[in-house]
Amino acid sequence: MTKGQDTRIAILSVALDLASQSSLESVTIGSLAKATKMSKSGLFAHFQSKENLQIAILEFAARQFTDQVVIPSLKKKAGIPRIRALVENWIQWGSKLKGGCIFVSAGTEFSERPGKVRDFLLFQQQSWIESLKKIGKSAIRANDFREDIDCDQFAFDLYSLLMGYHYYSILLRSNESRQHQEKALDRLLNAYK
Amino acid sequence: MTKGQDTRIAILSVALDLASQSSLESVTIGSLAKATKMSKSGLFAHFQSKENLQIAILEFAARQFTDQVVIPSLKKKAGIPRIRALVENWIQWGSKLKGGCIFVSAGTEFSERPGKVRDFLLFQQQSWIESLKKIGKSAIRANDFREDIDCDQFAFDLYSLLMGYHYYSILLRSNESRQHQEKALDRLLNAYK
Repeated sequence: MTKGQDTRIAILSVALDLASQSSLESVTIGSLAKATKMSKSGLFAHFQSKENLQIAILEFAARQFTDQVVIPSLKKKAGIPRIRALVENWIQWGSKLKGGCIFVSAGTEFSERPGKVRDFLLFQQQSWIESLKKIGKSAIRANDFREDIDCDQFAFDLYSLLMGYHYYSILLRSNESRQHQEKALDRLLNAYK
Repeated sequence: MTKGQDTRIAILSVALDLASQSSLESVTIGSLAKATKMSKSGLFAHFQSKENLQIAILEFAARQFTDQVVIPSLKKKAGIPRIRALVENWIQWGSKLKGGCIFVSAGTEFSERPGKVRDFLLFQQQSWIESLKKIGKSAIRANDFREDIDCDQFAFDLYSLLMGYHYYSILLRSNESRQHQEKALDRLLNAYK
């Protein structure tokens, strides 16, 4: 990597932390300049506008998401072991961000704000749901799931479980969120067996 | 109701719409003055500060939530009919707000911002989860659920289902969100029978 790429990654790491703690909207070239101790003009040269900066943060997060959540699960045995790994990776990815998964918080923040940011969020969440469907299909091929299951429904069920975990752990700070998530996952996997 | 109370309710209705479409943080005495065509000084007399205004919006929403979601379900037969009514009421309540249930969006917005607003959100969500537990217990008493079920787990499962529905309908705008929610609810109720 060039020095320029290193700098960009360092800036985006700080920006993602800020966005996760507060909101995507709160990360401006000004607030990022304060947090990184860089000049506004230097940051402006990197991102040009607030919207570009917001998209750059989400693209950076999406790459981390793919690298930390999706790809490692594909190295696990197809079927239930891969699904369990995906859930575990998602929880670990969210636990590294102060406000949990950035796509959950940015999703509510931008749901009613048409534009490039919402388009990107929609695209990322649709890709995530596609991954959930595919992992369901691979569980059928691995004979861990029945052949007649509805993988779209499975994706909804698993997605819901993770959203529930997000709110129980991030907002409610419930000590039982992990235990509830594990029981819900066991029940879900059993229902599709 | 006095004229003052009427005015306050009219202001808070507009404020709740604004908060749901955008964010709680975006509703300031200034932005609300524009939206209601009232003077800033008049609004300031009602709410004194942005934080008080945010809490007044959430209290207003919480009363609507109780009146529209919780109370009507208690008039239904205890057990599965009451649970189905609660879910239906929750969906209807969210569908009246542009960004869906305000407590979902405000929950991510304020999860890392300690203070009175987060305290109120936490209190409201804990009350909601208590309602979900109670409705599970009443389903045991009505013999619709097995006696040995874990009502805390049931609350987590039902809460998760609603969160999944929220994101599928509000962010992803999936045509299948309703169908998925219904199938997930059937499976959930069957699991506890």
